[in-house]
Amino acid sequence: MSEPNDIIYGVHPVAEALKNPRRKIYSLKASRNAADRLAEEIAARGLEPEIVHPNVLDRRLGEEAVHQGLLIEAAPLRQPHLDEIDRRGIVVMLDQVTDPHNVGAILRSCAAFNVTALVATTRHSPEASAVLFKSASGAYEHVPFVKVTNLARAIAELKGYGFRILGLDSEAPEDIGAVDAAPPVAIVLGAEGKGLRQLTRDTCDLVVKLPFQGPIRSLNVSNACAVALYALSLADRPARP
Amino acid sequence: MSEPNDIIYGVHPVAEALKNPRRKIYSLKASRNAADRLAEEIAARGLEPEIVHPNVLDRRLGEEAVHQGLLIEAAPLRQPHLDEIDRRGIVVMLDQVTDPHNVGAILRSCAAFNVTALVATTRHSPEASAVLFKSASGAYEHVPFVKVTNLARAIAELKGYGFRILGLDSEAPEDIGAVDAAPPVAIVLGAEGKGLRQLTRDTCDLVVKLPFQGPIRSLNVSNACAVALYALSLADRPARP
Repeated sequence: MSEPNDIIYGVHPVAEALKNPRRKIYSLKASRNAADRLAEEIAARGLEPEIVHPNVLDRRLGEEAVHQGLLIEAAPLRQPHLDEIDRRGIVVMLDQVTDPHNVGAILRSCAAFNVTALVATTRHSPEASAVLFKSASGAYEHVPFVKVTNLARAIAELKGYGFRILGLDSEAPEDIGAVDAAPPVAIVLGAEGKGLRQLTRDTCDLVVKLPFQGPIRSLNVSNACAVALYALSLADRPARP
Repeated sequence: MSEPNDIIYGVHPVAEALKNPRRKIYSLKASRNAADRLAEEIAARGLEPEIVHPNVLDRRLGEEAVHQGLLIEAAPLRQPHLDEIDRRGIVVMLDQVTDPHNVGAILRSCAAFNVTALVATTRHSPEASAVLFKSASGAYEHVPFVKVTNLARAIAELKGYGFRILGLDSEAPEDIGAVDAAPPVAIVLGAEGKGLRQLTRDTCDLVVKLPFQGPIRSLNVSNACAVALYALSLADRPARP
């Protein structure tokens, strides 16, 4: 049986999907205004949108979905296997982080910080994937998203390719800013509340923490990822003046 | 007329509310398991929880709310006015950022990075506030949250107290890591998509950007805030080795 279609809504996700030549698009439903807004991208793609009243999208997607008058049905992107990714940069790995808002925001940060790939074990339902695409704000079209069945095995494989593996752990002795974090490097993030599983932690080369001084000592997982990626981006640059 | 009660649910928000002596709590509904889990905090407070089936909380809060068997009704916290906050540290200001998930995550980051106060114009409904409290994961009990009616006026007032005002803007010429950002400093964040309003931008001492190299050049606003706070925390410390 084939995979279900990707449901993509909202201005940024739809615009980036239209601009992605690897994206096979089956249909585009759009309100009059939204079709005008993305007229250039739609024309470049040679697509004929079906003009609908926004209520049609409300009914299809539910009241909560901020669809902004745009809905695409598309074939899922072909994603690389772990042995196909670039072996030079920064990789983000998720240990049982499942919330599609968080995973989407993490993808967006990965795109901003030019991350090589996101690696995760979780597969999302079509409904959750639609939320993930929206939250990623178009980044899903840019960041290779590798799904693996066993994270510890994936970590071992990346080690074999020369990656240094840093686990993020609030109890770690060292700050992320104080360790050798030059690429190729992978940063592993655990689920909120639970953190990294023991097997995952044991498989990392090193665990590091973010430097907090305040009364609450953890961040939302997508926030933690963004800070970690910024910290890693500094590792490659000269010290501040 | 008095303000409506705060509705607080979930383990971390309820635990932090119980530990906050400034929080006047009217009632606590808890499942048997959840009451056992927070037995120490509940006893310390001298509260008698009403033991309920989790379904009761599902019906009260809606299926989406991850209440973890805990629900408090409490008096709103008294929040400081702008002229009452500490004039030495870091302040975060929100220019029309309204989504309660984002504002909650921002509060959590403010607590982790020991921010002096969060300043915003938006008032949330009781339902949205409940989402904000959950997303803040207890940080709401720790971070002074100043509501103002006019952000440009609040910026001018903070300038008068000696704060340097940095606006975050993806089009800014300089990186946040390259400017003088020693406290007292305030960082101003705009709504996603729109960014800072012109008047807000004009009122800032300087606009700065986060350094992105990738195909998407913006982050979720709570992620942007977390990165900015980390960058500011480095401004106060010696250069990396």
